[in-house]
Amino acid sequence: MAQVVADRRDVDFVIHEQLKVESLSKYEGFADFNKKTIDMVVSEARNLALKELFPLLKEGDEEGCKFENGVVNVPKSFHKAYKLFREGGWIAMSDDPKWGGQGMPATVALAANNYFNGSNYPFMLHNILAHGAGKLVEKFGTDKQKNLFLKKMYSGEWGGSMLLTEPEAGSDVGALTTKAVDNGDGTYSITGNKIFISSGETDLVPNIIHPVLARIEGAPAGTGGISLFLVPKIWVNDDGSLGERNDIVCTGIEEKMGIHGSPTCSIALGSKGVCRGTLLGQANKGMSAMFVMMNEARLHVGMQGFACASASYLNALNYARDRVQGRSLTETDKNATGVPIIRHPDIRRILLTMKSTSEAMRSILFYTGFMEDMVKLSKTPEDKARYQGLIDVLIPVAKGYVTDRAFEMCSLGVQVFGGYGFTKEYPQEQLLRDCKITQIYEGTNGIQAMDLLGRKLGLNKGQAFTNLLDEVQKTIDSAKELPTLKNLADRLELNVSKLKEVGQSLLEKMRAGEVLKAFANAHPFLDVTGDTIMAWMLLWRAVIATEQLKNKPQSKDTAFYEGQLKSAQFYINSVLPVSIGKMNVIMLCDTAVIDIEEDSFGPR
Amino acid sequence: MAQVVADRRDVDFVIHEQLKVESLSKYEGFADFNKKTIDMVVSEARNLALKELFPLLKEGDEEGCKFENGVVNVPKSFHKAYKLFREGGWIAMSDDPKWGGQGMPATVALAANNYFNGSNYPFMLHNILAHGAGKLVEKFGTDKQKNLFLKKMYSGEWGGSMLLTEPEAGSDVGALTTKAVDNGDGTYSITGNKIFISSGETDLVPNIIHPVLARIEGAPAGTGGISLFLVPKIWVNDDGSLGERNDIVCTGIEEKMGIHGSPTCSIALGSKGVCRGTLLGQANKGMSAMFVMMNEARLHVGMQGFACASASYLNALNYARDRVQGRSLTETDKNATGVPIIRHPDIRRILLTMKSTSEAMRSILFYTGFMEDMVKLSKTPEDKARYQGLIDVLIPVAKGYVTDRAFEMCSLGVQVFGGYGFTKEYPQEQLLRDCKITQIYEGTNGIQAMDLLGRKLGLNKGQAFTNLLDEVQKTIDSAKELPTLKNLADRLELNVSKLKEVGQSLLEKMRAGEVLKAFANAHPFLDVTGDTIMAWMLLWRAVIATEQLKNKPQSKDTAFYEGQLKSAQFYINSVLPVSIGKMNVIMLCDTAVIDIEEDSFGPR
Repeated sequence: MAQVVADRRDVDFVIHEQLKVESLSKYEGFADFNKKTIDMVVSEARNLALKELFPLLKEGDEEGCKFENGVVNVPKSFHKAYKLFREGGWIAMSDDPKWGGQGMPATVALAANNYFNGSNYPFMLHNILAHGAGKLVEKFGTDKQKNLFLKKMYSGEWGGSMLLTEPEAGSDVGALTTKAVDNGDGTYSITGNKIFISSGETDLVPNIIHPVLARIEGAPAGTGGISLFLVPKIWVNDDGSLGERNDIVCTGIEEKMGIHGSPTCSIALGSKGVCRGTLLGQANKGMSAMFVMMNEARLHVGMQGFACASASYLNALNYARDRVQGRSLTETDKNATGVPIIRHPDIRRILLTMKSTSEAMRSILFYTGFMEDMVKLSKTPEDKARYQGLIDVLIPVAKGYVTDRAFEMCSLGVQVFGGYGFTKEYPQEQLLRDCKITQIYEGTNGIQAMDLLGRKLGLNKGQAFTNLLDEVQKTIDSAKELPTLKNLADRLELNVSKLKEVGQSLLEKMRAGEVLKAFANAHPFLDVTGDTIMAWMLLWRAVIATEQLKNKPQSKDTAFYEGQLKSAQFYINSVLPVSIGKMNVIMLCDTAVIDIEEDSFGPR
Repeated sequence: MAQVVADRRDVDFVIHEQLKVESLSKYEGFADFNKKTIDMVVSEARNLALKELFPLLKEGDEEGCKFENGVVNVPKSFHKAYKLFREGGWIAMSDDPKWGGQGMPATVALAANNYFNGSNYPFMLHNILAHGAGKLVEKFGTDKQKNLFLKKMYSGEWGGSMLLTEPEAGSDVGALTTKAVDNGDGTYSITGNKIFISSGETDLVPNIIHPVLARIEGAPAGTGGISLFLVPKIWVNDDGSLGERNDIVCTGIEEKMGIHGSPTCSIALGSKGVCRGTLLGQANKGMSAMFVMMNEARLHVGMQGFACASASYLNALNYARDRVQGRSLTETDKNATGVPIIRHPDIRRILLTMKSTSEAMRSILFYTGFMEDMVKLSKTPEDKARYQGLIDVLIPVAKGYVTDRAFEMCSLGVQVFGGYGFTKEYPQEQLLRDCKITQIYEGTNGIQAMDLLGRKLGLNKGQAFTNLLDEVQKTIDSAKELPTLKNLADRLELNVSKLKEVGQSLLEKMRAGEVLKAFANAHPFLDVTGDTIMAWMLLWRAVIATEQLKNKPQSKDTAFYEGQLKSAQFYINSVLPVSIGKMNVIMLCDTAVIDIEEDSFGPR
């Protein structure tokens, strides 16, 4: 069967040849993860994904989730898949074995997730939410909380969710009004309404542990007065047995454009006045707890978008190889028969755009995971800070830039199929619909852009951003030594130096109090930073491919490595010059966006 | 009520201030169309659109079309709207009154269509197809065919469709296999299977007249052997009475991503061997007949995409004015309350992108319609050829470029709504879904790009393209005389001169036989041509606005005209520099797209 989820050769290339993940096995915690084990993990993930999750993708979309009398039924077929998934221990892949985790490197977990998300990411949301909620318990819970909840969450016996958003508090979390009152017995009474809660209710699991953001009575307004609580759907007694049903109920689910297999719930807490929860972490420190979780959550969303784009590419590639339509443009015989559309230059341009973009995304995401492993393994605070800084700068790219491009790739993936792409007969239109939300949730991409410009560009006095560009420079330097890559290296170097200039000019604007001018360029700045990082990853790949080709590998590998060279060549020569244009726009800093009067946008 | 379909002030601006459509009333055929009449037509269209069509948009999407036993039921509520629509005489707005048309200038009909398509374009497809089929009868029919069919089609009493595509003949129409055999009695027996037929079957009308492309037995292969036939669903006797049910049946409808109100039918002709049709036009000239219709059909698709984008913009604008979220970035008081999100620079950037893009699209589309009127009114063959040349060059932009950008705008329109944009509670996600097909049907945008590069750039030895750029230059020249627009004019002039260079280099490649290299740049060339034309339209608008502002208009108009200046400023300073980058890419002409081996795209 043609590959339809992820190109295994490319997954292997990134983990083994680009990141050399097995090098992690020299560290104590990862001693078990030699190449053989890593390959086995990826193969098992791939098998489970292709055999059990992928076949449910369309079914999940069509059947969707049903809400009735407070109960949410997920697509029926999800139950068996969920059982297999959790029995395989896939929910807590890179977590502490003490709590039931598999202790894998984050990079290896991402490779497995590439297959899971690429097969059926709406299904995967159930697991990701359970894991994220568990992680909060692991990081901020008391021993009692951990003992009561954690193993059951990491094993998937119980589910989890994340209750942040309220109708009037979306991007502005600090505006939330959910209230917590200290009962004096170690519990709080919580009252409020939350919306857009993925997996907020589901019939997949007998209990759901909800982390909830709320404000303790009397706490300050804004983000500084927000606390985090743990609110079980069914109360868990101190001995671990299940108690009464808590006063937290699902009041409805959203009708959405996509991800129909994942219920998006409205949740009422304390509508009968008896919703109980316990404080998770310190009072008024709920937002900082969220920030700790945010990088992981955003990286996962990047993975979702990327997985859609990558699957869309492989589908488009398979289709273009089989679909015969139109003579070759170089064919002079008017009676010649048609050729597969992969021969047509416009289709090739689309395919190479999708290929190079998917590959660069995979490298960015896996690299970010690899940096997480390096943070974990760092021996010195300096090392740790350095790796963490790289992650912090990369996250808005890995979430915002990647999902912006992923949506575009899914749209191109529809185009390759022509009219068929618009029908439900093929997966392309679902991938496009499912992908769209990745640009929105876990902080809209506008928020990601503001994060990059407002927090990350100036992080550690700009050192984090500079450190990242230093890593890019290392690749440029090694590419320059290879005659066939010299021109590409030069072009990327030009981009990097211009990007520094652009970053500098934006920092200066912010320092000069020209905040609006700077932030009107936040999204364009995310764009050009992303373009540069993507090109870096592709040049890095090309350096490796060039070296490997010297060894005259077997023909399959030769085709693969030559494909790497073509991806880098295409991207650097066809995307970076446009990126230079975008940087010129930022430098020009037109102020129409700021100056236009609200009435001039149009009539009320 | 806030405007949700089209900004009337902007519609009026284009027809009256930019194109001065009432000037057409000095010509005999359009003598009735003074300003007052034009305004009345637009107002009536607007009323019908807002009162009758717009309320059915969501219903049409949710209810969709149902197929059972060969019958297609459209959404129930469409019946009343269709009755009102056809009673208003809106199907054949700009057609010959002799056949029941209203004889309007095409430009005025487009203004009316702006409202119709913006309210509910899936509904409109029924009318557009009936009209297009009728137009074929008008242009190519014998007197008998016209007398039998035309008035009933233009009045909407009967419907119409267009049967081109077959499973193995989509973009490559010449590959079709539907067969016609001469019965010797003035009719042909037709056998074949067609797919993707909009309005191929519907319960809206008692009869449907199907133009069908088929190959007469023994005719040459390829496009040169294709003939056009008229196949009524129910046979029409010579006296106009209805005869027996013809052997043309709907075998199913597509499940699609969007436009659920419009059935996309599979049609079997002659499965019982008794499908009868009559030849429409000359034998083997079916493709040229199609080409005559193509401009109009493609302009309509551009209108559909644009209408989605324009509606999405107005929704986003209304939402951004009302939705309070987050403090102003310039607010120093941490306890300050939130502001409407229209105050946030990233949202303003999105809104001004959508505004300027929608406005430029409206001008391009209406201008193309205006050129159609000029062709009709031309006194000399030279004038006619000149106007026709402008249309021919503009069509791939008006269809391909416009719908590419329209889809992006609809995506931005979702972003402004955040999580709400992904839900079916708001229209944004439907507009995005409905818009997608406009990039595909009536020739995918890849085909549009090939049309611009392969046929239109070199049309009349390049004169048509040059003539268009000469029109752009006129606007540049007048803008240069206005000090406040001089810089913008200079920047556009730079783009135009670079575009000429790019066009020249591509023509040279084609002449040198480097066809693949040239066509690998077809879509980028469509992009940069479109960017330039869009900027032209906005600069033209800014010239008018500058003049009008000198007259110190009332405050509403002042806000509008200042909005025009801001659109031009934003677009020219923020989009054109990127376009220069895209042109650099074309000049660089990287060959990775051509050179990459098929195996290097990825595993089979």
